[in-house]
Amino acid sequence: MNGYSLNSRKVAASTNEWLEKRGVKRRDIADLVLWAQKSYYADLSVQECEAAVDKVLQKREVQNAILTGIQLDILSEEKKLFSPLQEMIENDEKLYGCDEILALSIVNVYGSIGLTNFGYIDKVKPGILTKLNSKTDGELHTFLDDLVGAVAAAAASYIAHRKQAAAEEKVDLLRD
Amino acid sequence: MNGYSLNSRKVAASTNEWLEKRGVKRRDIADLVLWAQKSYYADLSVQECEAAVDKVLQKREVQNAILTGIQLDILSEEKKLFSPLQEMIENDEKLYGCDEILALSIVNVYGSIGLTNFGYIDKVKPGILTKLNSKTDGELHTFLDDLVGAVAAAAASYIAHRKQAAAEEKVDLLRD
Amino acid sequence: MNGYSLNSRKVAASTNEWLEKRGVKRRDIADLVLWAQKSYYADLSVQECEAAVDKVLQKREVQNAILTGIQLDILSEEKKLFSPLQEMIENDEKLYGCDEILALSIVNVYGSIGLTNFGYIDKVKPGILTKLNSKTDGELHTFLDDLVGAVAAAAASYIAHRKQAAAEEKVDLLRD
Amino acid sequence: MNGYSLNSRKVAASTNEWLEKRGVKRRDIADLVLWAQKSYYADLSVQECEAAVDKVLQKREVQNAILTGIQLDILSEEKKLFSPLQEMIENDEKLYGCDEILALSIVNVYGSIGLTNFGYIDKVKPGILTKLNSKTDGELHTFLDDLVGAVAAAAASYIAHRKQAAAEEKVDLLRD
Repeated sequence: MNGYSLNSRKVAASTNEWLEKRGVKRRDIADLVLWAQKSYYADLSVQECEAAVDKVLQKREVQNAILTGIQLDILSEEKKLFSPLQEMIENDEKLYGCDEILALSIVNVYGSIGLTNFGYIDKVKPGILTKLNSKTDGELHTFLDDLVGAVAAAAASYIAHRKQAAAEEKVDLLRD
Repeated sequence: MNGYSLNSRKVAASTNEWLEKRGVKRRDIADLVLWAQKSYYADLSVQECEAAVDKVLQKREVQNAILTGIQLDILSEEKKLFSPLQEMIENDEKLYGCDEILALSIVNVYGSIGLTNFGYIDKVKPGILTKLNSKTDGELHTFLDDLVGAVAAAAASYIAHRKQAAAEEKVDLLRD
Repeated sequence: MNGYSLNSRKVAASTNEWLEKRGVKRRDIADLVLWAQKSYYADLSVQECEAAVDKVLQKREVQNAILTGIQLDILSEEKKLFSPLQEMIENDEKLYGCDEILALSIVNVYGSIGLTNFGYIDKVKPGILTKLNSKTDGELHTFLDDLVGAVAAAAASYIAHRKQAAAEEKVDLLRD
Repeated sequence: MNGYSLNSRKVAASTNEWLEKRGVKRRDIADLVLWAQKSYYADLSVQECEAAVDKVLQKREVQNAILTGIQLDILSEEKKLFSPLQEMIENDEKLYGCDEILALSIVNVYGSIGLTNFGYIDKVKPGILTKLNSKTDGELHTFLDDLVGAVAAAAASYIAHRKQAAAEEKVDLLRD
């Protein structure tokens, strides 16, 4: 394709816009992170969680998965997918797992330690996830639901790495 | 969604139809398997490879990934995706990896031993994969390309399991 | 290595023996499956769950992951690993995720739909998982803990596939 | 576990030491990266590749996988694993895939775009990989072999991200 060149800023900006349009604020995701992590870190603030969410959302792999998932959600709302894919996505079919697959690619950006948090968040569906699943607004979020949980889980992994680094630095300062 | 119930036969039939429509025959995939495996098994026939491909294509996860990928390919041909997702898929953007992610979910149905075969097939692009990448027919196969390679890699893993079972049975017959 | 040939029956038998030796019965894993799935299938019996666990444990990838994980657990008990790997496994270090990675390879044998169940089981740690984490018997189960949860999650996925097949067969009988 | 606290510097230092002891220099891995990528970037230098390898080796997930894999390789050399795990690792059993699973966790640190490179490198086994597979030094590298290929593949992904960033910055300078 002549003339094509990737515009990374546009990909990042588009991800943020689409999350907003689909009803998900960064603060909503930060709340999920805080919900999952506050029992481990008593001093964790929602601001720290939001900074971690920002960090995750800057990753290209995360942006790609979010854009692809939201696009499929929208197309299923508009009934523009071929059958039986249309029905499977529209009904969040139990045996359809491509949403979890894209979510896993998000969790993995900070390693496998996020797997447990992802599953737990995805099962309990606190906060924004309950809203995404309510279907009261006529919107379908078969993919976004899992993707948002995955961003929260990856942000929790990022925080675990950061807290460890902070703890070691402190220890080192005392030692050296 | 009231009244919805999954029709597994329809999902399976649709996968076969869409592969055909997009120019991929089971025999084409079987040829990829034979290409990748003949140096390991001198007596391997294309019929055995085709039977292995059939086995892989019966898996629900494989059907889901293929239908989702082909749908995204078609929508990108019709320029119906939002920007910049449209441009990334249309141009098989190097930093867009959702095609590989769906492919990996196919490879995994017979375990991680298929990873190497997948990568190798995907790089060398023998047979049908060269055709899918030629863009001479006006079609875009950003996803299908990787998905077909993944089916071939999974089929190769299946064959490795079967050949081992056959070898052990023979040994057992001689022993017992 | 001349003379080597894989003995699949020995690998399968060894997996069963080691699970037993490490305090995990098939029934314990079946109980986890039932715990996770009974709200979805009112008529699910522990016998069905145990049959599903059997099915999962027959997969070579599952056996490989279990044997590797139990071996690492035992070596860490015997303090035979080099430092700092010894300390990380011995203390189930939060930032050490190779146990989750092996677990994921088990979950994947029945597709990504098991991810949520895995995370949920691994977080709540019902039944046998609490016992494996108690450290009262002088044993360390850094790997086994996650592997057992993964077998249960994969078995839950297997059941989801089977229940769907049963439902469709019934529907078909009524229709045809 | 009383008194335990992770020492991240020790984990990083240990990874480097063990790679050296097992005969793998950073330059060897950089050579693999250059081999895989030079056809895409005419101006790519081995110094850039080595910097990318450094970046990958600083990731905790990568260090964990390398230490675990080398430990299993060494134990198999010393015949200290239980049977039949000992035989499977010692003989790099075709149906044993835990080495590929750990390798995949390394590839994933820079996303799925590294999968193809991993498979290709792992099949062709250029440079250091041929040496690791030669078994002339009495050493067994069932795991290290795949892990080194995975580090090279992840480094190639890192370079792809960097080259894109550099290209866009240049374009922006010309435009703005």
